[in-house]
Amino acid sequence: MSGHERVHVFAPAVGASDVAGWVEYLTSAGGTATPLRFGATPTILATGDGPAHARPAHLPEPLAVVPTTGKSRYGHSDIRPEGTIVQIGPADIGDGAISVFAGPCAVETSEQLHDTVGVVRAAGAVGMRGGAFKPRTSPYDFQGLWWEGLAMLDEARERSGLPILTEVLDPRHVTEVAAVADGLQIGARNMQNFELLREAGAAGKPVVLKRGFGCTVDEVLAAAEYILCQGNDQVVLCERGIRTFESATRFTLDISAVALFKQRTHLPVMVDPSHSAGIPSLVEPVAMAAVAAGADALLVDVHGQPESALCDGKQALLPADFEQLMGRLEMLAMGLGRKLAGVTAPMLQPTG
Amino acid sequence: MSGHERVHVFAPAVGASDVAGWVEYLTSAGGTATPLRFGATPTILATGDGPAHARPAHLPEPLAVVPTTGKSRYGHSDIRPEGTIVQIGPADIGDGAISVFAGPCAVETSEQLHDTVGVVRAAGAVGMRGGAFKPRTSPYDFQGLWWEGLAMLDEARERSGLPILTEVLDPRHVTEVAAVADGLQIGARNMQNFELLREAGAAGKPVVLKRGFGCTVDEVLAAAEYILCQGNDQVVLCERGIRTFESATRFTLDISAVALFKQRTHLPVMVDPSHSAGIPSLVEPVAMAAVAAGADALLVDVHGQPESALCDGKQALLPADFEQLMGRLEMLAMGLGRKLAGVTAPMLQPTG
Amino acid sequence: MSGHERVHVFAPAVGASDVAGWVEYLTSAGGTATPLRFGATPTILATGDGPAHARPAHLPEPLAVVPTTGKSRYGHSDIRPEGTIVQIGPADIGDGAISVFAGPCAVETSEQLHDTVGVVRAAGAVGMRGGAFKPRTSPYDFQGLWWEGLAMLDEARERSGLPILTEVLDPRHVTEVAAVADGLQIGARNMQNFELLREAGAAGKPVVLKRGFGCTVDEVLAAAEYILCQGNDQVVLCERGIRTFESATRFTLDISAVALFKQRTHLPVMVDPSHSAGIPSLVEPVAMAAVAAGADALLVDVHGQPESALCDGKQALLPADFEQLMGRLEMLAMGLGRKLAGVTAPMLQPTG
Amino acid sequence: MSGHERVHVFAPAVGASDVAGWVEYLTSAGGTATPLRFGATPTILATGDGPAHARPAHLPEPLAVVPTTGKSRYGHSDIRPEGTIVQIGPADIGDGAISVFAGPCAVETSEQLHDTVGVVRAAGAVGMRGGAFKPRTSPYDFQGLWWEGLAMLDEARERSGLPILTEVLDPRHVTEVAAVADGLQIGARNMQNFELLREAGAAGKPVVLKRGFGCTVDEVLAAAEYILCQGNDQVVLCERGIRTFESATRFTLDISAVALFKQRTHLPVMVDPSHSAGIPSLVEPVAMAAVAAGADALLVDVHGQPESALCDGKQALLPADFEQLMGRLEMLAMGLGRKLAGVTAPMLQPTG
Repeated sequence: MSGHERVHVFAPAVGASDVAGWVEYLTSAGGTATPLRFGATPTILATGDGPAHARPAHLPEPLAVVPTTGKSRYGHSDIRPEGTIVQIGPADIGDGAISVFAGPCAVETSEQLHDTVGVVRAAGAVGMRGGAFKPRTSPYDFQGLWWEGLAMLDEARERSGLPILTEVLDPRHVTEVAAVADGLQIGARNMQNFELLREAGAAGKPVVLKRGFGCTVDEVLAAAEYILCQGNDQVVLCERGIRTFESATRFTLDISAVALFKQRTHLPVMVDPSHSAGIPSLVEPVAMAAVAAGADALLVDVHGQPESALCDGKQALLPADFEQLMGRLEMLAMGLGRKLAGVTAPMLQPTG
Repeated sequence: MSGHERVHVFAPAVGASDVAGWVEYLTSAGGTATPLRFGATPTILATGDGPAHARPAHLPEPLAVVPTTGKSRYGHSDIRPEGTIVQIGPADIGDGAISVFAGPCAVETSEQLHDTVGVVRAAGAVGMRGGAFKPRTSPYDFQGLWWEGLAMLDEARERSGLPILTEVLDPRHVTEVAAVADGLQIGARNMQNFELLREAGAAGKPVVLKRGFGCTVDEVLAAAEYILCQGNDQVVLCERGIRTFESATRFTLDISAVALFKQRTHLPVMVDPSHSAGIPSLVEPVAMAAVAAGADALLVDVHGQPESALCDGKQALLPADFEQLMGRLEMLAMGLGRKLAGVTAPMLQPTG
Repeated sequence: MSGHERVHVFAPAVGASDVAGWVEYLTSAGGTATPLRFGATPTILATGDGPAHARPAHLPEPLAVVPTTGKSRYGHSDIRPEGTIVQIGPADIGDGAISVFAGPCAVETSEQLHDTVGVVRAAGAVGMRGGAFKPRTSPYDFQGLWWEGLAMLDEARERSGLPILTEVLDPRHVTEVAAVADGLQIGARNMQNFELLREAGAAGKPVVLKRGFGCTVDEVLAAAEYILCQGNDQVVLCERGIRTFESATRFTLDISAVALFKQRTHLPVMVDPSHSAGIPSLVEPVAMAAVAAGADALLVDVHGQPESALCDGKQALLPADFEQLMGRLEMLAMGLGRKLAGVTAPMLQPTG
Repeated sequence: MSGHERVHVFAPAVGASDVAGWVEYLTSAGGTATPLRFGATPTILATGDGPAHARPAHLPEPLAVVPTTGKSRYGHSDIRPEGTIVQIGPADIGDGAISVFAGPCAVETSEQLHDTVGVVRAAGAVGMRGGAFKPRTSPYDFQGLWWEGLAMLDEARERSGLPILTEVLDPRHVTEVAAVADGLQIGARNMQNFELLREAGAAGKPVVLKRGFGCTVDEVLAAAEYILCQGNDQVVLCERGIRTFESATRFTLDISAVALFKQRTHLPVMVDPSHSAGIPSLVEPVAMAAVAAGADALLVDVHGQPESALCDGKQALLPADFEQLMGRLEMLAMGLGRKLAGVTAPMLQPTG
């Protein structure tokens, strides 16, 4: 056992008294030992040279002792080599299947949301996306419906059964948004809004962390630690394109980052092919590429009338194009030995 | 008068009743007219085709009527062609002189701060920089001293007379930080943290807005509007480098942006040559270039023992190098027909 | 018919006299008409307002009349909507199958080349890559074996039957290299070496044009025109990554560009997953993504002893990893309704 | 003396027999020693552990022994700490003064060239720029007048006395262009056209090497070595902007690179403020910044009728704006303790 900082990882069945025993053992010759329940996984962050005497026989062996080199600690792939499954409501991400979250960029009206959610659910989406709080470059652009939009998402979930993934952009809103949403999205512009990350991490809901368009792969991993180090292991990393000199697309999707996230962490990876390209005809090829590169999930903008959308309409897929995408993804999945995740319960219709 | 959105700009002397008269006049044939006291400048944002009848003789003529094309509205150079002077405590930025703010990247101890502030003040700095709240890529790095650091800044100001420019990174902290600081800094990672911008804009203190390293010139102008549209005209735009493929420097300082900010807005422009390059030997040439390109102010990291700094020490100038820089800037200023801004009051010494 | 510049496209069966008739007809009222045999396709570039009288009955109708807006003219997808098949020796690119070219980055010895070519051929590659002329950042690095390397490629082709794709970097070398190679590669650093492009276009061999790492999609299309406008329709566009701020990979593969090239041109598209990432573990996911995004061909570095390679060894796949990649591509192809291109003839063994 | 590769640098007065003595001495215990006359400076590149015995008393001591770490060897600042002066005709670059080369982007007509050269000469330019061979993104754009344009430059030199700096883009043209031009320019698109660099280096004329817009500082230094390692020390490094995500300017001028080039090499540095920004109103601030950062020379586009220019007219300065720039540079120079380089001879007028 080295004197460097490292994380001891234990099996979920290891109880509090065994962890306490380990802490005592690890600190017996100086050094520190800080326990953290990381999701269902007991861990201890240890520093110092380690104990002078041998481990007492009654203490369970750790599954792994992971050196914390670099900025990645609880997200490191060695912490949980089998990978983490993130559960956004009834939808699993990271179990091998391809999970598609879809919906409008921004919630506009109850009808628009209901119609779109019906379309994406019928085509096989397992969750809905929809922004109530919209971070906009200019204060003079539509800023979302805020709490009213959140209520519309709540209603749409009741009728569709699809869980809600929605953005939160102010640490003061986190508790209230988390009370409704099944998953919290941290937008690209807030990836390094560290106080927001801390609040989101503490809110007890899964977090989808979108990559900042000016941020590196290493910085994404470091930002995720702000959430993970609070014991919240329900984090999805989302690649959505970076800023480059190429102006043919709004952003340049970094397809290698998808593979790097999968290789370097145990977290599931999502890709947003809609915001990266900003061009509807590129959504399908980029989505296909993302899945072939190993992405666990997709986040797709769909809108019934893209031309009249209040936010980023130009890039949204039409319902028919989304259906075609889902069909192609289903075929692709077979070629990869995977399958499309699905929902089975019927959708409620509005009454009256 | 066109039917498009536009801002009517009035002389500071124009009073509330004249503004009310103008609002009534502008809305007499439909359309909207929203008054905003922009610093000391009365303005009205008007939409619609404008009034059907001629302006009543008693209403004062506007200084300008500025069409609000693009995302820039209150920051547009035509709103105030003579430029805006921002007052951070006793230090003016934008009056033609070159204003240098300097100090440690992070506040570490009272002594470190006092010593450094003494050095930079003696060399000609008109304000101190120093971070109490540090946004760090990793949660495992030094995060600043928070409120304790703020108190140290307060104390250093008392002894030196130099005003405090310090970063705020959570909308929940703004009021308390603004109660102490003379100027609020919005860091690069928070340039598009729009709720923070709104709070900072409303806090009644000048705001230095650092360019996000993945953000365009247009996005900087749009972000500034979040502050300006609340009537706060005390905004300084700060260029601090963008992310590019060049890895010889930490960031690539965009020298053209300095000129573009000056040409497109009435706001003063600051440049941070320390964080952009990340190399001490580049601070002087980049600072000289910034001033030659038209920058009003510089923000320079200085540290007595850079090698032991808790944050970004590698890039800080040593006191002697800072003195040399100030000497060269003074000569440069003459070649530009400008001068270095200066302070005149004596610095207090600690007693006992 | 508009007065703007446009290309008249005719069926391959249309003969010289009909083309001459069309030229006469198009110029009958002024304007210009320049015939170009574009591969097997007769075309006429016309300017001016067009003829005053109706088309003589004996002249065949064009397949299409394509306006030459933008920089793309002969490469525009409307010139040949069914797409172009490029034939590099016996290997077809663009017929719907996935064509893999593989081999060492640089030719080092006859044995190394023979061994590697044997491996990649057995695993299903349809062509060999291998550099005899290596453009190197520094004059002090290995520059390739030049003509000796070319002779080794010639010998390797004789034994393997695999066609040669190799780089040419000086217009003075084109004729001699083209006398041996089945396909000429223009490297990323030479994408805008326009005199080289002209020579390569005139040499009568297919050309694989690699995207410059600092060049846009539009510039790739414009560079291709230097080759195409000489009547050479045997051009493959190769995406190999662009320079961005992300340093986790050597370059950032622009997966959207693959789809844009397919949508905007009739030319087949190749992807180089080896040089883009510069990391062996990323070759497979990036190659899979490229094919899922629509790439027609892949260019893969394979080396028996990557650690001792004279050039870019670190990124090469080991033979076993290449075999695994080919197996996964075969499965992926099925999910896409495509197949892997293959060779059938036996490989010659060296005698004695 | 270490066993690593290193360059022995001798005083210009050291003769061939002393160099031969040193070669013999250095190779006396194995190792290699390759002499190169680098401009007027005798040098020997040595490898191996060095001689076993002490240096014979008659051999002169070297001025320096410079280890060749990295890709920079003959360009390394330690080779010639006092810096190199490059002489383009009668114009010196690198002697401390600010040398301005100006003229049209492309040579169009004899009159246009004469008029523009007259203007820039009167305003203080010491050399003329003007492209006869224009590398253009598209084959359908104006490609320059080639040899005819070169003859016009020759004539303009005769009348003005200003030396010619002009681009060469094909290794097959180098000899003929060098027979006329006073300085050869390698364009950004050809910075890594290594065969062209070798030819230009061997042609016996100074070379201005423009930075590729997708190339790093280190790559510029490595590219320069292709010229320098042939003994040609007359190389000027030219920063002209790199590709970044910022689209407000055509390229992003890397002001830090100017300082890095000065610090890392002994070569003079030129900056092109016209092509980097692509906006006339940015030429002056960027030019001022470049000089303040330490640039030795500027390369400025000037055109009498920018709107009708055949190539890149939009970015050219009008004659009056160029005169204003020169006036401001003269003042700036004083603030820097420098001066503007100047010509004194009268300009010939056309006869008849």
